[in-house]
Amino acid sequence: MNKKALWTAAIAGAILFAGEAVAQSSSAWTSETIQQLRQISEAALQDDYAYRQTAHLTDNIGPRMAGSPQAAAAVEYVADEMRKLGLDVRLEKVTVPRWVRGEERGELISYPGQVPGTKQKIVVTALASLNCATPPEGITADVVVVNNLEELAGLPRGKVQGKIVVFNERFDQKLAASGFALEAYGQAVAYRENGRLAAARQGAVAALVRSVGGAEFRLPHTGETGYDPKLPGIPAGAITAEDAELLARLTAQGPVALHLVLTPKLLGEVESYNVVADLKGSKHPEQVVIVSGHLDSWDLGTGALDDAAGVAVAMEAAQIVKQLKLQPDRTLRVVAWMAEEIGVFGGRAYAKQHAQEISNHFAAIETDLGAGHAMGINVCCDDSMLKLLRPMADILLASGAGVLRASEDTGADIIPLRVAGVPTFSPIQDVSTYFDYHHSAADTLDKIDPHRLRENAAVVATLAYAVATIQTELPRKPQPVPDWMK
Amino acid sequence: MNKKALWTAAIAGAILFAGEAVAQSSSAWTSETIQQLRQISEAALQDDYAYRQTAHLTDNIGPRMAGSPQAAAAVEYVADEMRKLGLDVRLEKVTVPRWVRGEERGELISYPGQVPGTKQKIVVTALASLNCATPPEGITADVVVVNNLEELAGLPRGKVQGKIVVFNERFDQKLAASGFALEAYGQAVAYRENGRLAAARQGAVAALVRSVGGAEFRLPHTGETGYDPKLPGIPAGAITAEDAELLARLTAQGPVALHLVLTPKLLGEVESYNVVADLKGSKHPEQVVIVSGHLDSWDLGTGALDDAAGVAVAMEAAQIVKQLKLQPDRTLRVVAWMAEEIGVFGGRAYAKQHAQEISNHFAAIETDLGAGHAMGINVCCDDSMLKLLRPMADILLASGAGVLRASEDTGADIIPLRVAGVPTFSPIQDVSTYFDYHHSAADTLDKIDPHRLRENAAVVATLAYAVATIQTELPRKPQPVPDWMK
Repeated sequence: MNKKALWTAAIAGAILFAGEAVAQSSSAWTSETIQQLRQISEAALQDDYAYRQTAHLTDNIGPRMAGSPQAAAAVEYVADEMRKLGLDVRLEKVTVPRWVRGEERGELISYPGQVPGTKQKIVVTALASLNCATPPEGITADVVVVNNLEELAGLPRGKVQGKIVVFNERFDQKLAASGFALEAYGQAVAYRENGRLAAARQGAVAALVRSVGGAEFRLPHTGETGYDPKLPGIPAGAITAEDAELLARLTAQGPVALHLVLTPKLLGEVESYNVVADLKGSKHPEQVVIVSGHLDSWDLGTGALDDAAGVAVAMEAAQIVKQLKLQPDRTLRVVAWMAEEIGVFGGRAYAKQHAQEISNHFAAIETDLGAGHAMGINVCCDDSMLKLLRPMADILLASGAGVLRASEDTGADIIPLRVAGVPTFSPIQDVSTYFDYHHSAADTLDKIDPHRLRENAAVVATLAYAVATIQTELPRKPQPVPDWMK
Repeated sequence: MNKKALWTAAIAGAILFAGEAVAQSSSAWTSETIQQLRQISEAALQDDYAYRQTAHLTDNIGPRMAGSPQAAAAVEYVADEMRKLGLDVRLEKVTVPRWVRGEERGELISYPGQVPGTKQKIVVTALASLNCATPPEGITADVVVVNNLEELAGLPRGKVQGKIVVFNERFDQKLAASGFALEAYGQAVAYRENGRLAAARQGAVAALVRSVGGAEFRLPHTGETGYDPKLPGIPAGAITAEDAELLARLTAQGPVALHLVLTPKLLGEVESYNVVADLKGSKHPEQVVIVSGHLDSWDLGTGALDDAAGVAVAMEAAQIVKQLKLQPDRTLRVVAWMAEEIGVFGGRAYAKQHAQEISNHFAAIETDLGAGHAMGINVCCDDSMLKLLRPMADILLASGAGVLRASEDTGADIIPLRVAGVPTFSPIQDVSTYFDYHHSAADTLDKIDPHRLRENAAVVATLAYAVATIQTELPRKPQPVPDWMK
C-alpha cells in the first residue's frame, strides 16, 4: 500500500462485533442470497486460485515497477486470466512515470577510530521522487544525525548546510506488536515522506531516512519521498536500521564523512493500463461494485504482499462466483490498478475517466495490506452500514473475520471514488509483520501463508457478492480530498 | 563460532542444577575467595567495559576478516587495552590466509513464464574455500534443486553434470525456537560444508546452499565450505532462503538458467597474531587459565556477536579482577584468537607454539556463541568437575546462570588444548536468535543487549577467577582430535 493512505486513516472508530445489533433475518438479502454467501465463503476458504495468481505474478513475472516490461506483462496476464473466466475485459489507459533504480552505494570514508586505508559499508537504497539522484560519481559530505524533524528544525543552518542529514526515527516495534502496526508505520513513514524536503530547506545536500520497517536484518525499505519544485532536489535514500544506529553512534564521537552514490532515473512517461474486468450483473448491470488491488510493485522484492496478494484476492472473488455459477444483481468489476506506489496514478485516472458514471459506482473494495489473517471488514464512510452489513459479516465469523469496523483505511486507489461519495471497503488484516517486509527485497511469495490468503479471499468475495446483491441502497457520503492527493 | 565445533559438540549430557549435589561450603575455595567471586560477579553485572570494547571493535574498527588491515588494527587495539590494564602482553605469530570477497551476483536469465527482456535477481554471497571462484565474466548453467545430499546422490550423473546444484535444506526454525538452535544449525550447516564437494563429485559446475539462518529477510549468510584437492574446485555460494524457495518452485515448472558471478580471491598468506595478555598469578604464576574469544570475523557484518562479544567478555574478566585489585593464584591469560573463521589458525598455532608447556595450562575458557542470556557453564570433559564447581556456580544463580552442564561445546579455538588434556569451559548462552544473524551483514552492534553481555562477562570472569584460584587440581582427560581438525 501507499503510505499516504495511512495518514488519512483513522483506524480507531466504531467497531461492531457479531451479534451485537441485528438479528440474522434481514431485508437486505433474501435467504437464498444468504445461502449463496455462505457457499462463496466456504468455497473461497478451500480454493487455491488466488495463491496460484500471486505465485505467477511474483515468481514468474517478478517485480512489477510501474512502466516496466513486467508491469506490462502483468496487465496482459490478469486480462487473459479474467477473459478465461468469461469476464468482459478492458484495458484503460494510465500514463505513468517510469522510474528506474540506478547504482546505490554508501561508504563511510572517514570516522572516529577508522583504520587507515579502510572504509565501512552503509546499506542504502534510493527513494523515488523527482530530481533525486547524486551525480554518477556520487557526493561526499559529513553526516548529521537527527532523531526527528523537531531536532532538525532546532539546528542552526550552519550545522546542516552542505551535510547529509540522517533521520534516525525508530519504527515503534512494541506499538506494532501490540496490534498498532499501522500507527507505528504512520509515525515513521512521515520521515520518508517529509525528511528530504525538510533537509533541503535547511541546505542539506542529501537526506537519508532510517528504513521504515519492523525487523532489523540489514534490509533497506524503499518508497516514495516528497517533491517540492521550490526546493533543491537533493538525493534521498533509505538506510537500514543498523546503519542508522551506527551513524548515530559514530557522529556522537566525532565527524563522519559519507560517500553516497544514488543514481535513479526518471525515464519519462509510459502508457500503461488499469485492468478492468466485468462480471455483468443480472438486474442492475449498469451499477458497479469494484473489487481490486494494485498490480504494480516496488522493484526490490517481487511485491507478493504489496500487492500481488490484493490483486489475486480480487481475481478470486470473480472466480468463486463463476465457479459456483452465480450471478450478482449488480456488475462485479475486478480492477487491477496501475502505479499505486508512485502516486496512485491508476486510481486517479479511473476516477477521471469514469467521472460521468460515478453515480453508478455502487461500492468499491480494495485489498492492500498484505495477506495476514483476515479479521473482518473496514467500512467507509457511514456508520449505518455497520448495522446493515451485519448478517453478511456473521457468515464470516466461521473464519474469524466477523468484525465490522468504521475506518477510512480502505486502500489508496479507491480514495478518488470515496471522494465522489462511493462507499468503500477493505478486509481488516493482521499487519503485525507486514511492515517487516514492506517495500523491501524480502517481499516475496514465501511471505504469503496460503491459508491466510484464502481467508482474505473469503472476506472479499463474500463482501463483494453481498454488496452486489444487496436489496437496498448504500448511503453515499462524499469525503474531502486528503491533503496529499491534492 | 566456527561450524565445525558444533559437529563434535554433544549438547546433551549430564546437567547439574544448583543445590543438587553439594553444600555451599567446600574445600575447593577459601571462604575469602568465595567472597571475592561474589564481588567479581556483582561488579561484572554492573560494568560496561565489555560493551565499550565490543563497540570499538565493531563500530570503529569494523569487519575483521583474517589478514585484513582491520584485523591487524584489532590486534593492536586489544594489546593496547590489555597493556592499559597492566597485563603482560605478547603478540604470538599466526600465519593466516588472506581471503577477499569479490563480485557476487546471481541472475536468472531464463525460466518458466519469464517476461521477455527481463531477468530476476538471486541474492548470493560467496563461501570461502580454495579454488572457489567463477571466471570474472561468470558462468551460466541450468539449475538443479535438491533438498538434501541423499536426493543429490540419487540423481543420475547426467542430471547434475554441467549444472548448478542448489541445496534447499531448510533451517529447522521450530527446533531452534525450542531451545535447540545449535542442533538446527548443525543439521543445516552440513550442506554449507559438504555440498560443494558432493556437487563437484557428480560433475556440477557450481554449488549454492540455502543460507544457514533462522530468519527470512533476503539475507545471505557466508561461511567456509569444504575443499578436496582431488575434486574440481567449483564455485560455491550461499543464497537466501527466499531465493532457494524461488528456485525450487521455478525448477518444478521447467528449466531455469542462472548466471552466476562469484570472484573471491585468496591473496596468499599474511602474518597475523594471537593477542596473549597475562595477569600474573600470585602462587602458581607458571600455571595458566586462558579466557578467550576470537578476534577475526567474517566481512559482511561487523562480527559483533561472532565474536567481538567473546573477546570483550574475556577482556572484561581481566578488567574486573584489576578493578577489584584482586590477584588469582594462577596466571589469568586473556587470549584474542586470530583466524578462527577460516580454519582455527590461531588456536592451532598456539597449541603448537606452547606444546612444551601444555601441562602448565590449567584450564581454558572461550566465549563464541554471541551474547544471549547466560545460563551457566559448559564443562569439558570430566563430569566430576560438575560437582567440584558447584559452589562457584551457586554464586551465578542470582543472574540466572547457575547451570553446570557437561558439554564439548566450549569453543573451537581451545579444542587443540582439550585434545592435549586441558579442561575447557564456555558460558551456556541463549542462542535462539544467534543464527538469524550469524555470518551475515546483520551481525552488528545493535544485536548486542548490553545487559546480556554483562551476564556473560559475569559468568566468564567468575569462572576464570574461580579456576585460577581453586585449591585442587582439575582432572585432565586428553580428547581425540575431531575429524575435521585432522
